[in-house]
Amino acid sequence: MKLTILGCHSATPHENKNPTAQVLDIKGHRFLIDCGEGTQVQLRKAKVSFTHLKHIFISHLHGDHFFGLPGLVSSFRLLGREAPLHIYGPKGIKDALLLLLKLGKSAPSYPLHFHELESDVSECIYEDDSVKVTTIPLLHRVYTNGFLFEEKEGLRRINLKAAQANDIDKSQFRLLQLGQNVKNENGILIDNATVTLAPDAPQKYAYCSDTAYHPAIVPIIHKADWLYHEATFLAQHESIAAKTKHSTAAQAASIAKEAEIDRLILGHFSSRYKDLQPFVMEAAAIFPNVILAADGAVIS
Amino acid sequence: MKLTILGCHSATPHENKNPTAQVLDIKGHRFLIDCGEGTQVQLRKAKVSFTHLKHIFISHLHGDHFFGLPGLVSSFRLLGREAPLHIYGPKGIKDALLLLLKLGKSAPSYPLHFHELESDVSECIYEDDSVKVTTIPLLHRVYTNGFLFEEKEGLRRINLKAAQANDIDKSQFRLLQLGQNVKNENGILIDNATVTLAPDAPQKYAYCSDTAYHPAIVPIIHKADWLYHEATFLAQHESIAAKTKHSTAAQAASIAKEAEIDRLILGHFSSRYKDLQPFVMEAAAIFPNVILAADGAVIS
Repeated sequence: MKLTILGCHSATPHENKNPTAQVLDIKGHRFLIDCGEGTQVQLRKAKVSFTHLKHIFISHLHGDHFFGLPGLVSSFRLLGREAPLHIYGPKGIKDALLLLLKLGKSAPSYPLHFHELESDVSECIYEDDSVKVTTIPLLHRVYTNGFLFEEKEGLRRINLKAAQANDIDKSQFRLLQLGQNVKNENGILIDNATVTLAPDAPQKYAYCSDTAYHPAIVPIIHKADWLYHEATFLAQHESIAAKTKHSTAAQAASIAKEAEIDRLILGHFSSRYKDLQPFVMEAAAIFPNVILAADGAVIS
Repeated sequence: MKLTILGCHSATPHENKNPTAQVLDIKGHRFLIDCGEGTQVQLRKAKVSFTHLKHIFISHLHGDHFFGLPGLVSSFRLLGREAPLHIYGPKGIKDALLLLLKLGKSAPSYPLHFHELESDVSECIYEDDSVKVTTIPLLHRVYTNGFLFEEKEGLRRINLKAAQANDIDKSQFRLLQLGQNVKNENGILIDNATVTLAPDAPQKYAYCSDTAYHPAIVPIIHKADWLYHEATFLAQHESIAAKTKHSTAAQAASIAKEAEIDRLILGHFSSRYKDLQPFVMEAAAIFPNVILAADGAVIS
């Protein structure tokens, strides 16, 4: 898994502080998560090719998570895209986007598929042989979902030395990867476990922004490897966080601890804070393995 | 007049190349002209205060002239704006913007007035004591207007030395500015022309983007001080310009020459050109007083 943070700041416009967007590379997929204004330029700065973006996940329809989408969808057309594009987001996203494109007589030249979300319970919204994506219903001022990206268990890994020592022909490797026992060059049946290793442990990434403190998500994100959780405020502004349905760094850390996450990434910082170090200190007192997101940062 | 170029490039997204937006300061007004994606950040970079923006003029509803507007309108709300905002643009702009704000439950906290345009002939869309704004119907793939910003003739200027020499009391200065004859301290009637100078010549700025070569605009923009005219292409790509209803640098220069403009500013460059100097050379062969727009440039 590789996570590229394109923007991790809240809505107020600032030079060099970008609203939310990130790219997750996972098992050969490149997923775009949220698309605040300026995302296309951030993609260029991060040297992320537009070509491999096929699925875009939008958490909610506040501008700082969504107003970069019309421009990106239009640019795909300008760049001659032919591959289908799938957009997952709250009900209403389709009409809004299609109206904007219609006003500019800029209907996309490629198949554009919308998957509108309106369920209040977690649901699988994408699945293939290698990856599964599930919604994480969040608690915000408008209908909002986080997203859980899960790798599926991969193939068993061939132990090359053991396979050689057991005289197994390479033609049998595919069956071994699938977990079967195979006959060697002398016709003897070899037990799979003697010549293979367990697959790499599948990884999980949970994206939760924007949300108030919401312990109901803990079972859904349980034991994720990485959790990106919004921390718009510090604990000293907990009442503003409650009122605006955002979280504090301490609350994000509590969720990470409860959910037995491996690594917590904080983001969506309010522009009122000039120095972000207090976010780390506040969270680390509760959950030590914490880092701050930063525009342009790559986490792998 | 002071013109701040926030972005002067065509639609394809590039690091450090911003889509169209500019700010015109004229007679105490601050007008925003077009609002491509990222305009709010460009305003911040140019240190242009949001507070004095009260009128926004949108030429057409292609994304590179318009997709920054939802974010800007939302940010005004976040920043606690109370002053009214007026938006002038093609029919359809109101529904699109209000739909986006409704989806995010972000209705503006301030009065938002739309002035939707659909006329194919030039019309006055704003007027007060000091300034007048008129549409310049353009020729593009969608309904598009340029805008002509005209200062009105100001007050006559007091010639202080002459006023003193003629024993005129300061209480009479306002009448003099208005062009009247006044009595001096000795009761003698003084002719206005002997103690005042003509007002500063009113200035005119014509903004024309996006458009194909369209000589019909010449009478409307005649003798403007500055003309910003799109020059998406060089003459070598004139057929692409015709097909996409854009202009070449030579065509922009021809318009400037015909209209007896004082100074031509070229912009809206296609990203296919790495070097923009050929735009100046091509235009200057037809109309010598030409400059290239540049993101962040201030012209006064």
